[in-house]
Amino acid sequence: MSGAPSGGSAPEVLLYEVGPRDGLQNEADLVPTPAKLELVTRLATSGLRAVEVTSFDSPKWIPQLADADELAALVPSLPGVAYSALVPNEPGFHRFEAAAGVHVAAMFVSASETHNRANVNRGVDEHLERARVVFERAAEAGVPVRAYASTVCGCPYEGEVAVSAVVDLVGKLFALGASDVSLGDTTGVGHPRQVRELVRAVAAEAPLGRIALHLHDTYGRALANVQAGYEEGVRIFDASVGGLGGCPYAPGASGNVATEDVVDLFERAGVSTGVDLDRLVDVAAWLETDVLRRALPGRVYRARVGARERGEGGA
Amino acid sequence: MSGAPSGGSAPEVLLYEVGPRDGLQNEADLVPTPAKLELVTRLATSGLRAVEVTSFDSPKWIPQLADADELAALVPSLPGVAYSALVPNEPGFHRFEAAAGVHVAAMFVSASETHNRANVNRGVDEHLERARVVFERAAEAGVPVRAYASTVCGCPYEGEVAVSAVVDLVGKLFALGASDVSLGDTTGVGHPRQVRELVRAVAAEAPLGRIALHLHDTYGRALANVQAGYEEGVRIFDASVGGLGGCPYAPGASGNVATEDVVDLFERAGVSTGVDLDRLVDVAAWLETDVLRRALPGRVYRARVGARERGEGGA
Repeated sequence: MSGAPSGGSAPEVLLYEVGPRDGLQNEADLVPTPAKLELVTRLATSGLRAVEVTSFDSPKWIPQLADADELAALVPSLPGVAYSALVPNEPGFHRFEAAAGVHVAAMFVSASETHNRANVNRGVDEHLERARVVFERAAEAGVPVRAYASTVCGCPYEGEVAVSAVVDLVGKLFALGASDVSLGDTTGVGHPRQVRELVRAVAAEAPLGRIALHLHDTYGRALANVQAGYEEGVRIFDASVGGLGGCPYAPGASGNVATEDVVDLFERAGVSTGVDLDRLVDVAAWLETDVLRRALPGRVYRARVGARERGEGGA
Repeated sequence: MSGAPSGGSAPEVLLYEVGPRDGLQNEADLVPTPAKLELVTRLATSGLRAVEVTSFDSPKWIPQLADADELAALVPSLPGVAYSALVPNEPGFHRFEAAAGVHVAAMFVSASETHNRANVNRGVDEHLERARVVFERAAEAGVPVRAYASTVCGCPYEGEVAVSAVVDLVGKLFALGASDVSLGDTTGVGHPRQVRELVRAVAAEAPLGRIALHLHDTYGRALANVQAGYEEGVRIFDASVGGLGGCPYAPGASGNVATEDVVDLFERAGVSTGVDLDRLVDVAAWLETDVLRRALPGRVYRARVGARERGEGGA
């Protein structure tokens, strides 16, 4: 029952690390490029096989990720590790190709019309039409495109989001050529029964092995929702080291589910993740103490720090 | 999908509020009796039908609850609300009876021999033998006895705890006359598959309707474990307003699952709790701001405070 990865067996689930992109983009204080490079490197050498590194969005929208070109060119090539980066448009795809160090292009679209308009000032269908060129360029270049479908459990503007709207959107994304689709509970309102119903509905129309869950922990339900998704057959889960990604000014609120917490949830139950929990906890400790200098919301990390301070073992 | 209790329908789950006892006993600064009385009253008038008020343990063991006799005599009699208090021994039961305001006596025993010895300097069987007199006095007085079986998912000293040891202990507790048995994951190490297996094993030998789950959120899995228990048929869940009960010096660590978080988990899924979430959030806010003056770990409460500060609605 230790936190070490299950010896020898092939990982049963893929944890998709989004901390360097989805986490850091919410940090107000600029993190220096060398620290980002160290973060990505430490994550990839902790056994995480998919790491989202940065975004080729305009620096004026996300100043924190303005060093995308430099960082993406620097990340170390490691066997079995795939790096992804957000690519919002065709110029972004040119930057992605020029950087050369990243393997997967990622794009965003909301399942809620209002939320999509609020984010990119376009409706869902127009947004997809504009994204077509990125899918086409990526296909020509042999680059997989990961699609994030956000607000799948609820929208901050519209409230409930119909399951049929999510299923419809997932179908369109695969038709455009998405390699996999990550279903995002952007506001963390989802609950396990809802996640089960959503996954079943999506799986009836799309390949379940190419569906990921991207769950936020706003109301503390992210792990319950991960578990529900796993029991329904999902095997790809997005997560963020330390639970990075919340608003730094509202402690404990709204972050991504912490990668360590997902690793421990699975490994305790004998489900292999391939990730070294001890190394990952060390990354969270370094981030908290040396880089961000604020308490991170991840629970397993926090519990281990508490145990260390009390002089107990790491169990 | 509001946080209000499901209109009119009978509650499907019973939330057993342990904040005033299990929560406050970990607070180093003494909370004045009037504040405790206000806490209990506000909880009971939020729709919580079971509230553990205090402990008749020796004040030298739990100085925070040294006002047990006074408090238990003051709690307001409300229709449909049952108050409980810990009764560690026969003298404690005399104090319980003298206080008159409390209805259910509660006792503790560990599923782990070492943990039980560490707590009360006696093995499990000797502890149960000594508890027999309390069960007998309670039976004579027509007082139900709630039994807490702790460390059911793991022991800080022994590590794994055998499911058979828990099943055996639960059987002994019902044989002694327990009205219900609360299975405690004291260190929060449990995971959903384990909870499912444990509940199934216990339910094969004991009445499931009289089994509660008492889950700590040390590793962020309490809600996932609540959900697993619910899906296996458990309908009584212990919880603590605001997530009270962790070590105040390790923010975010080791508390009971927050009552608001359990209410929201269930009500979002259409499972009626009978609890008014808005009122409960107000209790947590009052506790944090006016009584304890430290951040509470409950997630729904924290998210709502954040939304209020950003000028958003409470959804």
